[in-house]
Amino acid sequence: MELKVSRKSKSKKTVITVKDVKIGNGDPVIIAGPCAVEGEEEYIAEALFLKEAGVQILRGGAFKPRTSPYAFSGLGVEGLKILAKAREITGLPVVTEVMDPRDVEIVGKYADILQIGSRNMQNFTLLKEVGLVDKPVLLKRGLAATIKEWFLAAEYIVNSGNEQVILCERGIRTFEDYTRNTFDLAGMVAALDLTHLPVIADPSHATGRSELVGRVALGALAAGADGIMVEVHPHPEEALSDGRQSLDYEEFKKLMSVIKRFKSQSV
Amino acid sequence: MELKVSRKSKSKKTVITVKDVKIGNGDPVIIAGPCAVEGEEEYIAEALFLKEAGVQILRGGAFKPRTSPYAFSGLGVEGLKILAKAREITGLPVVTEVMDPRDVEIVGKYADILQIGSRNMQNFTLLKEVGLVDKPVLLKRGLAATIKEWFLAAEYIVNSGNEQVILCERGIRTFEDYTRNTFDLAGMVAALDLTHLPVIADPSHATGRSELVGRVALGALAAGADGIMVEVHPHPEEALSDGRQSLDYEEFKKLMSVIKRFKSQSV
Amino acid sequence: MELKVSRKSKSKKTVITVKDVKIGNGDPVIIAGPCAVEGEEEYIAEALFLKEAGVQILRGGAFKPRTSPYAFSGLGVEGLKILAKAREITGLPVVTEVMDPRDVEIVGKYADILQIGSRNMQNFTLLKEVGLVDKPVLLKRGLAATIKEWFLAAEYIVNSGNEQVILCERGIRTFEDYTRNTFDLAGMVAALDLTHLPVIADPSHATGRSELVGRVALGALAAGADGIMVEVHPHPEEALSDGRQSLDYEEFKKLMSVIKRFKSQSV
Amino acid sequence: MELKVSRKSKSKKTVITVKDVKIGNGDPVIIAGPCAVEGEEEYIAEALFLKEAGVQILRGGAFKPRTSPYAFSGLGVEGLKILAKAREITGLPVVTEVMDPRDVEIVGKYADILQIGSRNMQNFTLLKEVGLVDKPVLLKRGLAATIKEWFLAAEYIVNSGNEQVILCERGIRTFEDYTRNTFDLAGMVAALDLTHLPVIADPSHATGRSELVGRVALGALAAGADGIMVEVHPHPEEALSDGRQSLDYEEFKKLMSVIKRFKSQSV
Repeated sequence: MELKVSRKSKSKKTVITVKDVKIGNGDPVIIAGPCAVEGEEEYIAEALFLKEAGVQILRGGAFKPRTSPYAFSGLGVEGLKILAKAREITGLPVVTEVMDPRDVEIVGKYADILQIGSRNMQNFTLLKEVGLVDKPVLLKRGLAATIKEWFLAAEYIVNSGNEQVILCERGIRTFEDYTRNTFDLAGMVAALDLTHLPVIADPSHATGRSELVGRVALGALAAGADGIMVEVHPHPEEALSDGRQSLDYEEFKKLMSVIKRFKSQSV
Repeated sequence: MELKVSRKSKSKKTVITVKDVKIGNGDPVIIAGPCAVEGEEEYIAEALFLKEAGVQILRGGAFKPRTSPYAFSGLGVEGLKILAKAREITGLPVVTEVMDPRDVEIVGKYADILQIGSRNMQNFTLLKEVGLVDKPVLLKRGLAATIKEWFLAAEYIVNSGNEQVILCERGIRTFEDYTRNTFDLAGMVAALDLTHLPVIADPSHATGRSELVGRVALGALAAGADGIMVEVHPHPEEALSDGRQSLDYEEFKKLMSVIKRFKSQSV
Repeated sequence: MELKVSRKSKSKKTVITVKDVKIGNGDPVIIAGPCAVEGEEEYIAEALFLKEAGVQILRGGAFKPRTSPYAFSGLGVEGLKILAKAREITGLPVVTEVMDPRDVEIVGKYADILQIGSRNMQNFTLLKEVGLVDKPVLLKRGLAATIKEWFLAAEYIVNSGNEQVILCERGIRTFEDYTRNTFDLAGMVAALDLTHLPVIADPSHATGRSELVGRVALGALAAGADGIMVEVHPHPEEALSDGRQSLDYEEFKKLMSVIKRFKSQSV
Repeated sequence: MELKVSRKSKSKKTVITVKDVKIGNGDPVIIAGPCAVEGEEEYIAEALFLKEAGVQILRGGAFKPRTSPYAFSGLGVEGLKILAKAREITGLPVVTEVMDPRDVEIVGKYADILQIGSRNMQNFTLLKEVGLVDKPVLLKRGLAATIKEWFLAAEYIVNSGNEQVILCERGIRTFEDYTRNTFDLAGMVAALDLTHLPVIADPSHATGRSELVGRVALGALAAGADGIMVEVHPHPEEALSDGRQSLDYEEFKKLMSVIKRFKSQSV
């Protein structure tokens, strides 16, 4: 049996529309924001900067999966409300992670795209739950997931009734420990071929090092990614999580100018 | 800060008592059963065979995490009731997996030990939920989890209030594909040293090949495991899941006789 | 102590000159050819095609490391002579692998660049031997080598007296088996930052699938690679080795036209 | 075609005889010694201790493969002569590594067993060279080698004419970095089934931590290993290489007493 997410089931590329943004139509989309929503004032200010810089979708974590129970785990519903406010002010759609099947409803109320994190890629309960929602789902590849398992996780969502799935390659776990994970460029390209879903890249989690993020982003775009998702923070060294991999404003503006040049040439 | 699960926080080994069985007291415990509960009559018959063979705890899946949405995913509550019946008839305690935080209560009602599967090792929502229950939790190591991440997952449960955690090494994902996973014997030994929790081995999922299960089980016991969990099925070739790695009755009886000899010598 | 290959020892980028070709000067170099030299007539014809297509350096194996002792292992010295002839006719420099320290002299006699294959990245005997030669060495990253170990392997060569080392990222071994290896884009970028040596990419061995080669090559170039090395064969399905990952002439011409456009835009 | 090393080609287990020692006859053999031969007096003293402790074969490196060109790389021929002297005094056979095909003759002159290290497992030149010698070869599994590739490396030796090959599992490279490598117990068991060659375990390199060595050794023996090879040093903290994983004399004597009890019970 062919999977529903497979090109063999549906050869035409799926294009997902969120507000005014189209994902998968050949024009790569830029998603950016801090790892976690840390406060209202800060988040709104950053959202305005990002809009100005050309970002099309805002990201920000309200519920944060953390390896340690003692790490900052996000502002929760408070964070969702801040996201919604930033969304209202900037007019940009917002993506945020949902970890608990019981939170799907409330996250869906505030966010435009629901994110399933790497550690939950095979949380089948959660996959089925977001499959019941009428919102796009951004499905991150698991740290130890083969591309086939990634497609099957997407199939859970589609098979539950939600066809709006965006795949996100964010690095897999290997023996190499200089980078946080190993960005699997060829796996991303294969996903573009084998499924009809949009496929984006997250160079921030893939590398864990801000100095590598820009070039990995460009590599992903040149290889055909439908978009990138980048972590940006006004003061990375003070971030409550993932500061080491976040671009500061200057670095991000520089990356955006290279990307704009890149996009104009591809036309 | 030292973790609560660390030997540095508590040097004395944790011994967990379930009905008459003690886990972690130096006498390795044998857990066995089919991958999934497939029917009442079959399960009861197998439970009686396993008791006769010397098994101390029964296993059996009612809620089955499956890579594909189209695979058999267990009998659900129906399966829990069958487990409870087998428990009543044999007098043996029962361990079964819980996947959904909303099912923790009902699974806890029927089972003696709640299992968290590999794919949910970093489902922090679920970890916190089983941390609120007064039942032992068997925490399988994730496919791509370092031993430190495994300990931190256990810490989530202990920090939520439940100190009865049993760690289970079941193989990690590596480049070697002859076996289903790579059983990490040294990681298991390190877990015995670094935490005060009981640590058991699951040679069935670790190897994925029934012909290797017995010797890997013996290796784990000789290296100090507090127990083993083995998949057994009367007709492995007809099993609805994991047949390739299940021992049949003859193979299991043979393994038990070797283990009994091994245990008598260790005294 | 800082390594001699480190940017901290020498901040200025090393540019290697082979005949008229410069590697590491900002203009990416294209290396192409069949996996193995299979015969004189065929190789000369292919070399002429490649020159016409814009290739700057020819590749071709005379001594082939093969996992099985029963696989075709190259034409040996006969193959070297064919390479030298192609070199003479086309005027293009030639790179070929050396596996045996006793062959370094003869390979150096016929080839312009000596290649050390992945499986020999930590063959320290061989590394020291090519360190004594006055020819550039193309050092492929080992399948299980961290980038630090790769740099230390290069250090063996440089420390023996040969500073002309080209690093080549060709994919590492991970659990993902859809691709032959996992191309480590971020590791390649890190090598460009941390060493002063030229760093190129081999998308053919990295992916093992011809349909992915072109886009991975473009990704590598966009991320800053000093060049790419691609396997091309007139009839991939008849190749004596690595046919599955070889581009045919049409595919390669198409890739070259995209690369030319890419290079012109980068100026 | 079935490989010559396969049980399908030859179902009868190969037993290798070195002096009075038999490897593969069901009675596990104990190989021990320091990582590197550091001096004559010290090595002879250790050899006498090891003999007294019940060791059957001495190990010690004269040519040491080192990741860094600046690390101690062994005493070379001087080290071989010390090994030969220890051999004469104790009457025990000696195993040592050969790295260079040009050294095979001289190493074979002094040693009883030639060792091929992990980093050279696919040094096909070297494999063919030791295939021409009439001495047993101890072939370590490569860090990133599947068991099939390991068997094919052995096949190179056997196909060159030398049927006396001993396989040695010494851990593979995975994401887990608490241990130096990941000891693949199930891979070792599979090698015992699939080939007719003796298979031993090296818990020292597999774990990289002396406190884990003993229990991993016991696990390997309980799972059926034909022997173990252990690093022992009188003062591990002063060892020129691999001190962290070496047992001191007290630790080794304790391990040997457990092994003797284990062996007596298995009869």
